[in-house]
Parts: sequence; structure tokens; C-alpha cells
Amino acid sequence: MNTPIAVSPAPTSRTAFSRVRIVLCQTSHPGNIGSAARALKTMGFSRLVLVRPRHRPEEQAIALAAGATDVLDNAQIVESLSEALAGTRHAVALTARRRELAVAPLWAREAAGEMALTLGDPDAEVALVFGNESAGLSNEELSLCSRWAMIPANPEFSSLNVASAVQLMCYELRLAVAAPGAPPAVPDAGEIATHEDVERLLAHLQQVAVESEFLDPANPKRFMVRMRRAAARARLEREEVAIFRGLLSAVEKPFK
Amino acid sequence: MNTPIAVSPAPTSRTAFSRVRIVLCQTSHPGNIGSAARALKTMGFSRLVLVRPRHRPEEQAIALAAGATDVLDNAQIVESLSEALAGTRHAVALTARRRELAVAPLWAREAAGEMALTLGDPDAEVALVFGNESAGLSNEELSLCSRWAMIPANPEFSSLNVASAVQLMCYELRLAVAAPGAPPAVPDAGEIATHEDVERLLAHLQQVAVESEFLDPANPKRFMVRMRRAAARARLEREEVAIFRGLLSAVEKPFK
Repeated sequence: MNTPIAVSPAPTSRTAFSRVRIVLCQTSHPGNIGSAARALKTMGFSRLVLVRPRHRPEEQAIALAAGATDVLDNAQIVESLSEALAGTRHAVALTARRRELAVAPLWAREAAGEMALTLGDPDAEVALVFGNESAGLSNEELSLCSRWAMIPANPEFSSLNVASAVQLMCYELRLAVAAPGAPPAVPDAGEIATHEDVERLLAHLQQVAVESEFLDPANPKRFMVRMRRAAARARLEREEVAIFRGLLSAVEKPFK
Repeated sequence: MNTPIAVSPAPTSRTAFSRVRIVLCQTSHPGNIGSAARALKTMGFSRLVLVRPRHRPEEQAIALAAGATDVLDNAQIVESLSEALAGTRHAVALTARRRELAVAPLWAREAAGEMALTLGDPDAEVALVFGNESAGLSNEELSLCSRWAMIPANPEFSSLNVASAVQLMCYELRLAVAAPGAPPAVPDAGEIATHEDVERLLAHLQQVAVESEFLDPANPKRFMVRMRRAAARARLEREEVAIFRGLLSAVEKPFK
């Protein structure tokens, strides 16, 4: 093994995202490096470290990076996992295989949660480590990592593509580091109707049902219960209530 | 739009996993279909429905399916999303774009949780719907789905590869349908040491530290506090405790 030399420190920004290295060990297919670059960038990460890739990322990798070529351009290539991990405090090795190991495995989500706690220290650098497409990580590589994580998977077909594994772990880490808040609002979604708006609509509906002789007020069965339930599920907008009220006014004219 | 015709019902097994359709609309690259087939199979799903794929899945798709060719072989090809959704009760459309929609979006995790509730009914069929690589889902396609889901992503680079999106949604749905239980045990991981084992080890360690004059019993500082803390973090196994006890016995001989 080479003497560890420091992977260059995180760029000026010291956000949690910038302190995460995504380390790919001995990747065989350049396309997977490109796909992994795209995957990690979609989750807000930027630092890719390649340990002895079979090929340097070139054409095919660039095509599959699809807009994440900056990640490829800035990728660091090193000779050993020790070099890739220099300066980190917490390294999680991803693997689908069960092996003799110093530590019990965690599921991906718990491993991400634990890593997010480490990242709470603004000086902490961490790494997510992924193995070769067919051989995975060697026992020696695994032994350099402080944690071992597994992605819950189909026990009969558990081998994820390496870029997919990068996507999932980066997704879990993104959520663990920063809860996403409310989903973006639908741009022109209307205001949800108030309780009173909906009550007035239901009263109007009942009136029209009786006027049209659809509903026998002496034997209403469960008509209003069902209508009320459907309205609750629909979470009607104020404007929709106004439309329905207009429709009810139009159809009740002949009965007035 | 074609008259909806029923997509063939789920195979004999009626597990929740068998009642989920993964629907890819107008996929351009056969490689993505293969990667998606692999992705969904790793998460325990099996039913792929292709709406007007640009190419039928052939060589490149098969290569990237990597062992999920059964999923490709059984994939159903239909002419419209309506056909793909026939018989479903709950369809979630995945999209990165914000648009005018009938419903507010959910995050992927919440959408999966809601879908898992629907799957609690053993007759319910559901669908996860993914759009074309560049154009996504059309507004008409979106309007056929009862829910709209987004994957939390880097706001400056939010476009996941379609197979990656399939991987993530299937992962979330797998976890929502069936919590994975404890991670698999390390095959020859030993039994964790008992409290008493660890206490005896610490006592022995203290004794050797005093015997060797490393530790001044009149001025112990925080030696034992630190050793106790390290032992707690290490979660030592019974066999490791025995090894340390043996080592302590060996090194204390000269002082006896």
C-alpha cells in the first residue's frame, strides 16, 4: 500500500455537502463513473474520488454524466483507498455481500443518519465508499472503513448497479443532512377552501338534490354522509367550490 | 387516446410487490429500460410496463439489465398510459418539473408511504409512472395519475437518470411496504460481551496500569474514565475481552 497522501481538502465552501467524498474503487466501466457523477450531483454533492479506475473517465463517462462533467473534471484519482480516506473521520463502505468484518452492518438509512451526525462537526470530512462492479470491495478495503452499510434489497437479486448505489446513498445522506421541507407548491394551485365554504357547498348540494327529487328528505339514507366524505378527501380549492356553486345554481333554476 | 384495455393482472402471487407496476412512458434509450429493469428487480418488484417505447428493449437493454432479463421478457408494451393504468387504484407520477396540476406534489418518501397504505388492501393494484428522458411526462399523462411525487434533489441539477429515479422510488416503496428488520448479522461476529465481562476487563487494566507504574493510584487523573468511554464505544465482543485479558495477564507477569 502506498503511503497515504492527503486528498486535497474541500473547496472554500464548508457546507456538509462539500465535506463528503464519494469514493469509487477500481471501477471497470467508465460509463458507471459518468453515471455516478450525475447521481451524486443530483443529490447536491460534488467530490468524486477514483481509486485506481480501470480507465480514466473519458468519452462514455462524459456522455453519461449528462451535465455533471464538472464533477468528472474535478475528480481526484488516487492509487489506494488509504489515500482516498486521508483526513476523513468516518467512512462508510457499501456492500451487498456479507463477510467477516470488524463491525456489524447498518442499513443505508441508519448509516446515513449516523454520518449526518458526524457532519454536524463543521470540520469533519467523511466518505462513502463503493467497490468494483463485479468484485465489490476487498476485505482489506472494507477494513479501512469505520462502518459497513447495506442497501435493503431483494435477497434473490441484490446487486445494484454502482451508480444506482451511489444515487441511493447520496439520497439518504441528503435527507439525513437536510430535511427537504415542504414540497414545492403547485404554481397556480388555488387556496384550499375554508370549512365554511365547503359547508355552504354541501348545504347547496343537499338543497338541489331535494328540489330535483333525487333525494327524499324523509328518507335521506346516507347521501349527505357520502358527499361529505368525498368532499373531505377532495380537499377542494376555493375556486372549485365557486364553480360547483355556480353549477348548482344553474341546474336548480328549473325547480325554482 | 386508445380505449383502455386491461394490462394483464398480476401473476399468481398476490404479494404487495407483485401488485406494483413500474410504467415507463416513451423511453428513448433502450439502455435505460434495461437499467430500470435491473433497478426494480433489485428492490423485489417484477412488473415493467412500457408505454410507446422508442425502441423495443433489445441488445443494449439486455446487457444493462444484468440478470433482470426476466423482467424485460415479461414487460408489457402498450400504446397509452391509460392502458398501462387500467385496473390500478393509485398511480404516482414522478417528475422533477413543477407544473399546473390537480394535486400538490408529495416527496418520494411520503408518496411511497401512501402507496404502501393502498397496497394494504390485497386487491389493490398500483403504478409508479416515469416519463421520457428529456421531456418527462406530458400534462395529459400527469393528469391521469392520482398523485404527483418529487425526489428531493439539488435545485441546480435536479434531473435524475430515469433508471436512478426508478431505483429510488422502488427503494422507498420497498421500505414502506416491508421494513427490513435487523441487518444481516456478520457471519462470525461474536457475542457482545456482558457488562460484567467488561467491568472485569477494566479492573484488570487498571491493576496492570498501577503495577507497571504507568498510573499513580494517588493521582489517577481521568485514565479510567477515558478507558471506560473507549470500551463503551467499542462494544467489545466476549472473545475480544478474553484476548485482552490474556494480553494483560502476559504483560503483568514481570510485575508480579
